[in-house]
Order: sequence, then structure tokens, then C-alpha cells
Amino acid sequence: MDLKQLREKTIKKTREQVKEKLLQKDRLIINLTRTISTIDKTTNLLFEQLRELYGLHFPELSRLRKNIDQYLEIVVNYGKRENIPEEHELKQKAKESAGVELGEKEMKAIISFAEKIKALREERKKLEKLLEEKVKELTPNACEVAGPLIVAKLITEVGSLKKLAELPSSTIQVMGAEKALFAHLKKGVKPPKHGIIFQHPLIHKAPKKQRGPIARKLASKLSIALKVDYFKGEFIGDKLKKELEEEIKTHKIRKT
Amino acid sequence: MDLKQLREKTIKKTREQVKEKLLQKDRLIINLTRTISTIDKTTNLLFEQLRELYGLHFPELSRLRKNIDQYLEIVVNYGKRENIPEEHELKQKAKESAGVELGEKEMKAIISFAEKIKALREERKKLEKLLEEKVKELTPNACEVAGPLIVAKLITEVGSLKKLAELPSSTIQVMGAEKALFAHLKKGVKPPKHGIIFQHPLIHKAPKKQRGPIARKLASKLSIALKVDYFKGEFIGDKLKKELEEEIKTHKIRKT
Repeated sequence: MDLKQLREKTIKKTREQVKEKLLQKDRLIINLTRTISTIDKTTNLLFEQLRELYGLHFPELSRLRKNIDQYLEIVVNYGKRENIPEEHELKQKAKESAGVELGEKEMKAIISFAEKIKALREERKKLEKLLEEKVKELTPNACEVAGPLIVAKLITEVGSLKKLAELPSSTIQVMGAEKALFAHLKKGVKPPKHGIIFQHPLIHKAPKKQRGPIARKLASKLSIALKVDYFKGEFIGDKLKKELEEEIKTHKIRKT
Repeated sequence: MDLKQLREKTIKKTREQVKEKLLQKDRLIINLTRTISTIDKTTNLLFEQLRELYGLHFPELSRLRKNIDQYLEIVVNYGKRENIPEEHELKQKAKESAGVELGEKEMKAIISFAEKIKALREERKKLEKLLEEKVKELTPNACEVAGPLIVAKLITEVGSLKKLAELPSSTIQVMGAEKALFAHLKKGVKPPKHGIIFQHPLIHKAPKKQRGPIARKLASKLSIALKVDYFKGEFIGDKLKKELEEEIKTHKIRKT
């Protein structure tokens, strides 16, 4: 093997390795995003069943603890209504409950089931933290502008950072609102103003009328950030973020 | 309060208690049946995601361990491919794998996620055992004839033992095959021969041509058993089961 052949082989190998690495970072982010959304969906389904089961014993708790984690806390910590301590705010309701008594075995099974749901909820938190880290590594600029979870959802929606970086900012703005977009194109109803990026506090906390312009500005900066991230450019996320905030402020002043 | 009033009150109270007890046994069975089927559905969804995640590292395992529990065992016990011991039948495949390397953190998160799915699968087994006990308590005759899980599914399908006990055997036979039944009524295609009761080994292990008659006979005995159970009659399950087996044997002899 001469030097030329060796050189070619080494380059090919390195290229493959790089490609694989990139591929992996994308895919890990996409897989983690999907896993988290599946955990959300499944814990909701399991929780519905838990409420039916534990509801035999303490039907009023559904109304008193609407939050899934708070409901789980009561079941896991106390089980039977009578175990709720005297000073607990739920004690009176527990005493007056219309629920029936369940056997020891049944209660144990229900508590154990509740623990599994709780463990899944905790798992979700851990995976989300890992996801945030991974997205920040891959797209530091985009994360600075829009936050890691929105960026993760956008990458997952299109399937890769490459594809996402190639999209115009107007597409990024409405991505995830395809249903409304097609209704607009087919039936002529108003076009959607925001899709996945609606989850950004700058948009969903803004008054309804300002959301459209803010979404446009956010998508525009995000689209620049994604291109820089994809081509491994310098960190300009802080600059982009500042510009965005300035533009929104100016826009608001102009409006009022 | 005179004696008559007291008597009436006591009867009323007892009736309520009995009603509640009955209600509870029904409802617990229905809730447990639904919970088990929800766990099946959700663990499948979660497992799909795990395969995507762990598939980054060891994509070949999907083909090598199609069974969910066996797949989970590998992930939970070994994690990284290199941890699979030399003498393990998967070692060679693990060495040749096209999967990429994952960081320690990523692998830890994936293993922990796999453990949660495994725990849910074990929970399901525990709940199924409890369900079997509860169904046997409520409907000993029906369980002897058709097995507790089929009886639980039938009760869940109609919503109570009372309603189920009132149904004719022909309805019990096709319950759970409503789609095929309505296709028969509307489009005149062949009627279904069995619904939920198809899960009984006497039916699904029989040759296709004999399944119809066997399903009819099983449904007939089951319907008697359910009525006896609902009215708290004596245990005649063993007698019914023996009759059923005799009838099927005679039917087969006549056929051949």
C-alpha cells in the first residue's frame, strides 16, 4: 500500500467516524425527545387507571389533588385513608369519604402500582435533563435563543439538524401547526402564527395580538442560530438573544 | 323508634352494605382488567422507545431478542456491549455490532429507563395474580369453565356481572368480535364464531373447522355458570367442565 492509498483510506475512515458521531448526536436527541413524550403519554394513561382503582377507596381525592404528582404522593405515602395523619388538611375529607374499604392485598398492589408511575415520572425528569445537556452541546446558539426543549422538538419534527438548518425562518415559525397551516391553504382561514415555538415564554406570555410579530422575530433569530450551529460557527447566541429582546421592546413601544 | 322501624332501618342498611360490597367486587375486577390492559399497551410504547435509544449502541439486539423481557434482561444486566461476558451467546454479535459508543451518562439513563419498564412488567404480573383471585372469589363456576382472565374480560366488556349473567349464551360467544358481527349484519359476510372466548385453549388450539361448534358449547356452559355465580348458587363448575369436555369429544368422534 503506497502513501496515497493510505492517505485516502485514513480520510475515508475519519469522514465515516465524523458522520457517525454527528448522526448519533442528532439521533440521540430525537430519540430522547420521543421517549419523553411517550413517557408523558403513558404515565397519563396509567394514572387514569390508578385513579379508578384508588378511587374505589377514596373517590374524593381526584377532586382534591388534580395534579398527578400530588395525587401520587398521597397514595404512596398513606395508602389507606385512615393512615392520613390527624393534622393533615385532607384528614376530614378522608374521614367523610364515600369510598369502600379495600383488603390489605389490594391496597398493597395499588400502592406498588402508584410507585411505578412515580418512578416513571422521575425517570422523565432525568431524561429531560440529559436531553437539555445534549441539545446545548449540539446547538448552543439555538438553545440560547429559544431554549433546549423547543430546539429538541424542532429537530425531532424534521428529523435532523441538517434539515432544520436548511429551512426558512417562516417554516420554523409555524412548524408543529401543520393542521392550521393546511386549513389556511385549503379553506382560506387565517394562517397560524406559531407552532412549536409558541412554548417559548416570550410568545405565550405576550398579549395575543403581539404574538404573531414576536413569533416572526423569534423564528428569524432562531433560524440564524441554527445555521451557525450546524456549520459549527462561533457562539453568537447571546448577541442574537439581545437583539431579539431589543426588537421586541421597540415593537412594543411602537405599538403603544 | 319502635321495633318495626328499627327492623326496616336495619334491613335497609344491610342491603346497602351488600350492594356496595357487590359493586366493589365488580368494579375492582373491571378496574384491574383495564389497568392490566393499559400496562400492556404502555409498556409496548415505552419499549419501542427503549429499542430506539439502546439501538444506537446495539442495533442488532432487536433482531436477536424479539421478546420484550429477554431484551430488557440484556440491557439491564449488561448495558454496554463490552460488558456482555465472553461465554455469552451474544458476545460475538456484540463485538461485531455496527452500533456507536454512548457516554457513561447516556448509558446509565438508558439502563435506568429499561429498569422502569421491567418494573412495570413485573407489576402487571402481580396485578394479574390479584385479578385471578378476585374473579375466582366472585365467579368460581365461570372460572372453572373458562378460566379467570376470560371471565374478567367479559365482565369488563359489559360493565358488571349482573349484566353479563343476563346475556344469552349466543351473545357471550361473540362478545368482543363486534366489528365482525356488524359486518355480518350489514354486509352479509359470515358471522363471527367467537370473540373474547377465542382465548380459551379449547378453542384456539382446536382445528379451524371445529372452533365454531366448540365456541358455541363453551359459551353455553359459561352462560349457565355465570347465572349460578350471580345468584350465589352451589359449585357446579367441575360438573359443567366435564360435560363440556364430553360434548366436545363426542362432537369430534361424530365428525371423524
